[in-house]
Amino acid sequence: MSEAASTDGPLFPASEGTFFRSRWVQAPDGVEQLDPARLAPGFRAGAAACGIKGGGEKDVGVIVCDAEGVSSALLLTRNASAAAPVRVCREHCDGAAIRAAVVNSGNANAATGEQGIKDALAMQQRAAEDLGLEASAVAVAETGAIGVPLPIQHVLEGIPQAGAMLSPEGGAQFAEAIMTTDRGPKQCSLRCDGVTVSAQAKGAGMIEPGFATMLCFVQTNGEIAKPEGALRSAVEGSFERISVDGQMSTNDTVLLQSSGEAGKSTPEGLLDAVLLQLALEVVADGEGATRVCRVEVRDAAKPAEAEEVARAIGNSPLVKTALFGRDPNWGRISQAAGQALAGEELPELGPDRIDAKELAGDEAEPELSVRLGRGKASAHLYFSDLNHEYIRINAEYTT
Amino acid sequence: MSEAASTDGPLFPASEGTFFRSRWVQAPDGVEQLDPARLAPGFRAGAAACGIKGGGEKDVGVIVCDAEGVSSALLLTRNASAAAPVRVCREHCDGAAIRAAVVNSGNANAATGEQGIKDALAMQQRAAEDLGLEASAVAVAETGAIGVPLPIQHVLEGIPQAGAMLSPEGGAQFAEAIMTTDRGPKQCSLRCDGVTVSAQAKGAGMIEPGFATMLCFVQTNGEIAKPEGALRSAVEGSFERISVDGQMSTNDTVLLQSSGEAGKSTPEGLLDAVLLQLALEVVADGEGATRVCRVEVRDAAKPAEAEEVARAIGNSPLVKTALFGRDPNWGRISQAAGQALAGEELPELGPDRIDAKELAGDEAEPELSVRLGRGKASAHLYFSDLNHEYIRINAEYTT
Repeated sequence: MSEAASTDGPLFPASEGTFFRSRWVQAPDGVEQLDPARLAPGFRAGAAACGIKGGGEKDVGVIVCDAEGVSSALLLTRNASAAAPVRVCREHCDGAAIRAAVVNSGNANAATGEQGIKDALAMQQRAAEDLGLEASAVAVAETGAIGVPLPIQHVLEGIPQAGAMLSPEGGAQFAEAIMTTDRGPKQCSLRCDGVTVSAQAKGAGMIEPGFATMLCFVQTNGEIAKPEGALRSAVEGSFERISVDGQMSTNDTVLLQSSGEAGKSTPEGLLDAVLLQLALEVVADGEGATRVCRVEVRDAAKPAEAEEVARAIGNSPLVKTALFGRDPNWGRISQAAGQALAGEELPELGPDRIDAKELAGDEAEPELSVRLGRGKASAHLYFSDLNHEYIRINAEYTT
Repeated sequence: MSEAASTDGPLFPASEGTFFRSRWVQAPDGVEQLDPARLAPGFRAGAAACGIKGGGEKDVGVIVCDAEGVSSALLLTRNASAAAPVRVCREHCDGAAIRAAVVNSGNANAATGEQGIKDALAMQQRAAEDLGLEASAVAVAETGAIGVPLPIQHVLEGIPQAGAMLSPEGGAQFAEAIMTTDRGPKQCSLRCDGVTVSAQAKGAGMIEPGFATMLCFVQTNGEIAKPEGALRSAVEGSFERISVDGQMSTNDTVLLQSSGEAGKSTPEGLLDAVLLQLALEVVADGEGATRVCRVEVRDAAKPAEAEEVARAIGNSPLVKTALFGRDPNWGRISQAAGQALAGEELPELGPDRIDAKELAGDEAEPELSVRLGRGKASAHLYFSDLNHEYIRINAEYTT
């Protein structure tokens, strides 16, 4: 059964018959797309508008796994100014057995002091009571403005309202409830060899994760032998490979839940493909983004060096404006690589070592490659362009 | 004798009676300003238009110290993709006894292969012949587009033309000849206790020096006991403290020349003040810049940590757009500091630790301070805002 996918990506045009719309995502054999609102069997989600965002927009979401034998993995931002919900998850969640998550958007509950911690704990407690779970089985995530006290009464009233909406087809309302400056919801539901993976993500700015970006929730009814390792590996190949503006968020959270009720393993590659597609949707929805570039750095002395050069290139405002201006300006790429390797020996990086041709074309997904000539390591990064709209959004989005 | 200063700075309005127009520059007692075109006694400069920039704009400059007993110091970029003139200076200049410099603007002669090295050597040789000096006594500097072959014949013809214009009042034409996207020339000539320091600088984009930024030439007839140490110290407090876009140039060069003919030491603090003023003019002339912010990071565990946090803040596009938008958005500052300290223990950075009030005002030079609460080290950085004009310049300035 294959139903029409309704997910909107601003850059990647829907190819016929497949959910994976970027040329960089490899779909596993036999994958079929389901209605993106349909969660993996055994999961339910709901959402409500509690008034943080205003205008009746959904801003509280709840997602729950009905199977008691859930296994889970939770990755959290490494930012030293981590938000209250991140701190609460670190200290009060059993990362291996998370049954549910409660989320609000419009307020990050970051840099909100002791009150912020109390508020995040209250959210966790209210959701746990409402769902009949232990508090440690509920993850809390929040996203939005930093440093603004959370209107906790509104959120506490919203949680049971979202709980009342819980449904196996609740993925769409949940994806909507976690949006901030996103141009659209990011979600999918895919089935392969009888196992479903559904996922919802949000993110548009403050994107350069230490390991994850902003919020992403992934559900499967397949078994995953080592959820933490599987999630870490999938995130390393997806959310850790994107940068909108080089800024690591205070709230990054990725939650994987597996009910195991399908009685078989989640097919290899499916989790990786889903996360990469959603990560690409996040970078493509980078604030103001009109293009996403994949830079591949080869022949580095070691992997960390390749990574550093790739990030120096992807985060250079000169390269990002050249991407916007369709300018195959390899000189700026040479400069950025040379800065990352300051003080090191480097062969001259000219057009024989830098292929920047695709920057000039009309392709929404150009590729760029650099050969450093120092060894055999490589790394890649997906980054968006820097343009007037980014300035407009961030100069006008005031506290 | 105090003559009118004609230097134009886009942000710092001229205060009456003093050259130092930023509140951040401390003028030494008894300093008097001379015509900024007047070089320190014993120095001459000249310039010509050789056709690189076109439109009759000056693009070749020569500066020379007539005293055989010159002492000098030369600081060069650490960028691993250093330009040909930087490589030539490293290998073929006697840094301690540089009598002259030859410069062109409009072409950086960077990433230009073996031919670029030959061209830079040819410039050095031609200037040396023209001035009757050893080649090793002539520094070469270039600035402009990267990866474009230098029109060497034009430059070689321009060098004797610039040499024919050599004059003790040649500072202004020389400052003009080194400009690229600069809004105006950056130069000064100051006298204190009978010793003159004159200087010319350029720079507007690709500004976050490893130790220096773009090009700066400084002359004095005073004695400087340890030119390299004095220059390094002055640069650490000036050009190393600014960032326009976080990008270390391939061509950064700072040359200090001292004739010693005044028979007394260059007054303490004068060199530091001159370089800080010029560095502030460079960041104030950052591409599109409308404001310059000074961020002070205090109470860090060690100096390198303070420095890292200051740079994370000053280079964050979210902070830079907030500076443009007059938004005292301390949340973005908290996030940037937390990213720089990822994985470390950090007290919550809220409004009690971040003073961002001045971002909201009309002041062209707002100050920002952050107390990390981790130790006693501190660091500061001057950075410009990020706005539409930066995008326009860099998306349209194609190769």
